[in-house]
Order: sequence, then C-alpha cells, then structure tokens
Amino acid sequence: MVLKNLSLGEGRYATIDADRLWRRHVEMARFGATARGGVNRLALTQIDIDAHVVLAQWASERGFSVFVDDTGNMFIRRVGSDQEAAPVTSGSHCDTQPTGGRFDGIFGVLAALEALDAIEDAGLVTRRPLEAAVWNNEEGVRFTPSYMGSAIYAGGIALEAMLAATDSSGATMGSAVQALKAALPNASHRPLGTPISAFVEAHIEQGPELEAAGDTIGIVTGMQGTRKFSIDVTGDEAHAGTTPRRHRRDAFVEAIAIVNALHELFHDADDTVRFTIGQFEVFPGALAVVPGRVSFSIDFRHPEQETLERLGNQVEPLCQRIVERCTVSVNEPSSAKPLRFIGVVPEVIERAVGRRGYPYRHIYSGAGHDARHLAGLCPSGMIFVPCEKGISHNEAENASPADLAAGAQIIADVMVDLANGD
Amino acid sequence: MVLKNLSLGEGRYATIDADRLWRRHVEMARFGATARGGVNRLALTQIDIDAHVVLAQWASERGFSVFVDDTGNMFIRRVGSDQEAAPVTSGSHCDTQPTGGRFDGIFGVLAALEALDAIEDAGLVTRRPLEAAVWNNEEGVRFTPSYMGSAIYAGGIALEAMLAATDSSGATMGSAVQALKAALPNASHRPLGTPISAFVEAHIEQGPELEAAGDTIGIVTGMQGTRKFSIDVTGDEAHAGTTPRRHRRDAFVEAIAIVNALHELFHDADDTVRFTIGQFEVFPGALAVVPGRVSFSIDFRHPEQETLERLGNQVEPLCQRIVERCTVSVNEPSSAKPLRFIGVVPEVIERAVGRRGYPYRHIYSGAGHDARHLAGLCPSGMIFVPCEKGISHNEAENASPADLAAGAQIIADVMVDLANGD
Repeated sequence: MVLKNLSLGEGRYATIDADRLWRRHVEMARFGATARGGVNRLALTQIDIDAHVVLAQWASERGFSVFVDDTGNMFIRRVGSDQEAAPVTSGSHCDTQPTGGRFDGIFGVLAALEALDAIEDAGLVTRRPLEAAVWNNEEGVRFTPSYMGSAIYAGGIALEAMLAATDSSGATMGSAVQALKAALPNASHRPLGTPISAFVEAHIEQGPELEAAGDTIGIVTGMQGTRKFSIDVTGDEAHAGTTPRRHRRDAFVEAIAIVNALHELFHDADDTVRFTIGQFEVFPGALAVVPGRVSFSIDFRHPEQETLERLGNQVEPLCQRIVERCTVSVNEPSSAKPLRFIGVVPEVIERAVGRRGYPYRHIYSGAGHDARHLAGLCPSGMIFVPCEKGISHNEAENASPADLAAGAQIIADVMVDLANGD
Repeated sequence: MVLKNLSLGEGRYATIDADRLWRRHVEMARFGATARGGVNRLALTQIDIDAHVVLAQWASERGFSVFVDDTGNMFIRRVGSDQEAAPVTSGSHCDTQPTGGRFDGIFGVLAALEALDAIEDAGLVTRRPLEAAVWNNEEGVRFTPSYMGSAIYAGGIALEAMLAATDSSGATMGSAVQALKAALPNASHRPLGTPISAFVEAHIEQGPELEAAGDTIGIVTGMQGTRKFSIDVTGDEAHAGTTPRRHRRDAFVEAIAIVNALHELFHDADDTVRFTIGQFEVFPGALAVVPGRVSFSIDFRHPEQETLERLGNQVEPLCQRIVERCTVSVNEPSSAKPLRFIGVVPEVIERAVGRRGYPYRHIYSGAGHDARHLAGLCPSGMIFVPCEKGISHNEAENASPADLAAGAQIIADVMVDLANGD
C-alpha cells in the first residue's frame, strides 16, 4: 500500500488561492446564517440543497462534472489521464448543527474544491481523477444516525432503512434525496460503493490543542470510539394539583434518578470520558401534567475500547435497577470502535506538511468524522486546522483565513501525490 | 349576601334529560378525539372553535342568545322576567390538556347548558336571566397563564398583555379570539366585566375521594393556593466529543443539580405538598451538542398560604446557590392564594343536594378552576362529581353518565334558586 512514486508531477504542486477559498466560506455561511453569526443548515433542507446547488455551479464553471448517489452524497470530479483509475477523493460535509458554526464540515468541502481549482489553474495533469465529496447528513440532527452518507457509501449501514428515516415533521430521507436530485438536473448518477483509491479529509480541530501550541496543521492519528444510547422512561400522566406523590408514576422524577446514577457512573477524575445528555424530552410537556414519558439520549466517547465496553455495558442494567414505578427501555442506535489512521495517507500528509514548512503536530480526534467510514473502504487520513478557543457546535465557532488556506494547500499537495502514485 | 326567597318558583324545579346530556358529551369528545380515547383540544385551535360553534348551534335551536367577549369567553343566555337583572351563571371550560380526557371542563359547560334546556323544557320563568359560560383557555397549555378567560373577565389580569400572548407557532391569543368571533357571526358582543349575580361551576373531581366514599356530589369548600415558576439555566453550547468536562458550561448538568435540590426542598413526608416539573426543554436539543440552555417549569400547590410562602420563597435563592458555571433566571408568571367558598352559593348547593337525596360530602379542591377567579367578582361555589380512580389530565379520564346527570341536576336546581332570589 506504499506509493512507489510520490512525485510523478515532477515535484510540481499547485498553489491554492486563499482569497477564493475565504470568499467561498463567506458565501456558504449565508446559507442558514443565524442572527448570532452561526449557521443552521440541517441535512437536505431547502437551505442545504441551495448550498449544494451553488457548489455544483462553481464546479461546472471550471468544467468539473457533478455526480449524486442514492443517499444524497455529491461528488465533483476533475478528470485524470487514466480514466479507468479510481479517484483520489477529499471532502467532508455541508450540513451543520442547529446552532452550528461557519467552518465545521464546509471547510473540508471547500478545501477539496479549492484543491481541484488550484490544480486546474496550474494546468497539472494527474494520473487518477480528483474528486471533492460532500457527504450527506454527517451531523445526524435532522435524520439519525450521524455520518449517514459516508456510512452507507462505505457499506456500514443499509441504504433502505436509512431512506425510510424520518425527520420531526415526518418527511423521509428518501424524499429529501429526491429533492436534492431534482435541484441538480445536470448531475450524473453515481452508484453506491464506486471505488475510491484514497481519501483525505480536512476539518477544523473542534478542540483547543493546535491553537494552544501555535501549530497550523494537525495530522490526525485516530478517533475516539463512541456509543450512543436512547432511553425511554414511561409512567402515567396525572393532574399536578390533585395527584399525591404516592399515587404518581412520574416519568420525569424517575428519569432524573437515572440521570443522577449515570452521572455518577460516567464520572472520571481524569476527565477523559466524554459523557453528554444533549436531548431530553418530556411528554406531554404541560405545566400542570405529571409527565407520562421522558425520552433522552446519551453520547458517550472514549479512546479505549475496553472503557467503552465496561461503562457502556452498564447503561441498561443501571436503568432497570433505578426505575421503581415506571418502565424503561434502552436502545443503542449507533456505536463505533476507536480508530487509528495508519499507512500511506498520513505518510503523504506528513511529507507535504514538511515541504511547506508549516508548524504541525500529531493529534487525536475527539470528534467523529466521515473519514471514519471511508477508512473501512480505502486508505484514509485527516488533517486539522486550528479552531478559535476550541469552540465548535456553537454559533461562535471561528477559524482564521490563513489557517484555512494552509489546510487547503496541504489537501491540494496530498491529492497530487496520491493521484500520481500507484 | 343571603337570598331572602329561595323558592320564588313555588318549589318547582326542572328535571334534566340525562340522555341528552350524555349524547352531548359523546358529541363533544369527537372534537380533538385521540387514538387512545382522550381529547386534545387546545384553546381556540380550529378544533376548539368548531366545538364552540356546535355549542352555539345547540343554544340557537332553543332560542337562547349567544355572546362573545374580547378575551374569547362565550356566554349562552336564557332570558329572565327582569331583563335588567344580572344573570346567574354556570359553566366551565371547553379546552383540554394535550393528552386530556372527555370530561375535564366540558362537563361544567354541558351541565350548565343542560340546566338551561331543562328549565326551558319545564317552562319555568326565573327572575334573573340564566347563563352558561365557556371560559377561554383554562388549561393554559397553548397560551399561558391558565384561567386566562375567567381571570381577565374578573379583572385579575390585563387584557392587552394576554391578547399579545403567543403560542409555540407565534400565533397570538388576539388572532385566535378574532378567529372565534369570525366563526360565530351571529354572536353579540359582551363587554368584559358585565355583572354576574352569582356563579356555580360543576366539574369532575380529578381525585379519588368521592368514588372511594361512594358519594355522588362533592360540595367544594375551597381550593389550594398555587405558585408557578419558570426557570432558565444558561451555559454554553459545545462539542460533545471534544470538550472535556472541565471546559464545559453544561446547562443540562446544572439544571439537574437544581432539580435535585428542589426535589429535596419540596419533599414532605405528609404528601400534602404538590410539586411537579411538567415542562423541561433542552436547547439546542442535539445528540452531540452540550446543552447551552435549559428551560423548565414548577407547578407548586398547597392548602396553606404560610407553606406556599415559606417553600416558594426559597426557589430563587436555591437556584442561585446551586449554579456554578452557568447563570439562572427565575420568573413567577402566576400565583394564587388558597381560597374558601362561603356564603349563599354553597348554602343553596347544600339544600339542593339535600332535596334530591344524593349522597354527598364536603371536599377540598386540589385543582384550580375558573370559579377561583369568579369568586372575586360575585358569590360563587362549585360541585364535583366522581372521577374514575381519580385519573385526570390523562386520556383514560372517565366519569359515569349517572353521576354527570346528578351533577347537572344540582346545577339546574341551584340556578333556579339563585335566579329567583334577590
């Protein structure tokens, strides 16, 4: 899996256009812009589809072709000299959290597109085609689970079940994909699982390490494992004024008892465990009604599989032990083992960063990314650029134009190397 | 305030039609019927307006006139021999909880209408006009606070602020009242605060006492006091995978700490305190985002003003003491002191129950009712009928046709007595 010839382009690399890259970030941030300076662009909403259409326009203006697959992933392709060769692909996602920022995901898409543009500007010929990918529904907010597009593409989850997934209004992922296709009438169909020779993803760090160290590039060594749980506590609705405590089956009170026990179980002095309850819904949600049902989520991450198993396996028994008058059900809609990036892609990244002379470090990813699923399909790797104060999944998320440009430059260099290798 | 002559009608009372009363309950339960046999009829939704229109049709068929006031209360009037006299009014509300039952509120409306119908059937002439009232938005779910229609009518809260109240879609109470008026083109305008000579309300008990004792009628002696709080905890949104606990300002974690302290504060071994958290919302409510804000409600009730003050006054200091990294704000949108029903109305009720020979008891109300606000305007009282297993604010709520008929009979008798008194 080591490439024999990393400089088939005779040492010629393309220089990216930092102004174009920044202008495109500003333009993309308009799609779903919030009053507090962030972005709310849930997967395949009209706002997200509009953003895809503009990306496809930019591609068409340079003569790149556009493809869409059956799960709503979009690919922008620059031809190579060997039309039969599988492409080198870079990219990330276009969707955001409901109170998300201007860089999470879209940076990786725009860095990949900028790489294609810069290589086109320089008139470089690569053996393999180059592709910029926009993976659908990475955030998993409108439709669950997360990483839906890349996971389906890499064969991690079944297409049919995912197309039937519904959002809170009852619309299906399948109908959303049809809406995307209708908005891109000139895009060609891309069969799922079409081979990719190598994948590299650029992303903001979403943590404080690079900024604190004064480094420009993080070469990602691996990714935490995750376990996600959804927990339903069911009791009985009752009148808040007339029903004494001894006659209540209060789903809220028992859900809180479970939460307290979970907080105790997952507490670690080292602060390595990531334990978050981000969704907690109470039904019917009326002031004067004792809640009959509570539904809440757990997002649990850790670098070690042993800890993921030891703590995660205690969730269901704990819930069953704590409930008294209510009933509880525990589901685990998704999980992923810790991952290491090894082999050709991180090697090529490290050489590219060395040539450019950017200060860098090896870094472990607390967040999950589409590259997790691509790593099961082809040699893969990731780079991070600094993220102001480590703040992400927040409208205040910020990154500097210079750091974004450095990241895009590395993506362009790495794509050239990989596309001219075996 | 004691009536001089309780039997001006020469001892003649009307006999209510139990079948008509039950048929109307069945008919009304169709408006907002849920799959589990309950009713979801939020205030002045189209479903609730449709129910008002049918009530007005039933009134018009008997020649009764219909009035609507500026806050969406509806009145059905049967004339008296003295057209200048203030009416004797009975009634309750038409709206329900989102997972409400078939009897809460609507029984009091139908009992009042049945009283008018039965008195009309019997050809009785009363000195005062008789009115059946449908108080708007008693439940306070779609628009807060509760008891909005009766409270505004009785001068307890200002009209203008309430008309500006919005539901979760942003629609105002004012626009909802206009929709009601548009659906009732033949209804006359009723100025707010038009005098009422006396008010009596029939309601299901919403508790288990009458059923357990085998009594048919409860003569209500008083009503618990209430304090309602809304609490907002504000922290910072952050990425669930990358943000260590020491860097989080997790609004959910601190809201749970407050809830634990509140549960401890409000716990009483006697089980007299009613403490309920029925609304608890987490923002942005995404699996992978550390919550930046939590908003929750407290519904606190007790028969003694001293306890309402002692415990209720600790809510805000407790919240401020518990929060560490987040901020908290505490509001108290509504409160009411404990109330006693005394004077002419409970006296007339007790005599009517004695004449009919129904088994009865004096009973204290755990729930709040529109009669609370009317009691500030005119002599008032209430009766309860049994409620199966005490279950209410629940789709399983149930009451027997015979008990409902007995309650309506008492309302008819009491209205005749009060309307022929001074």
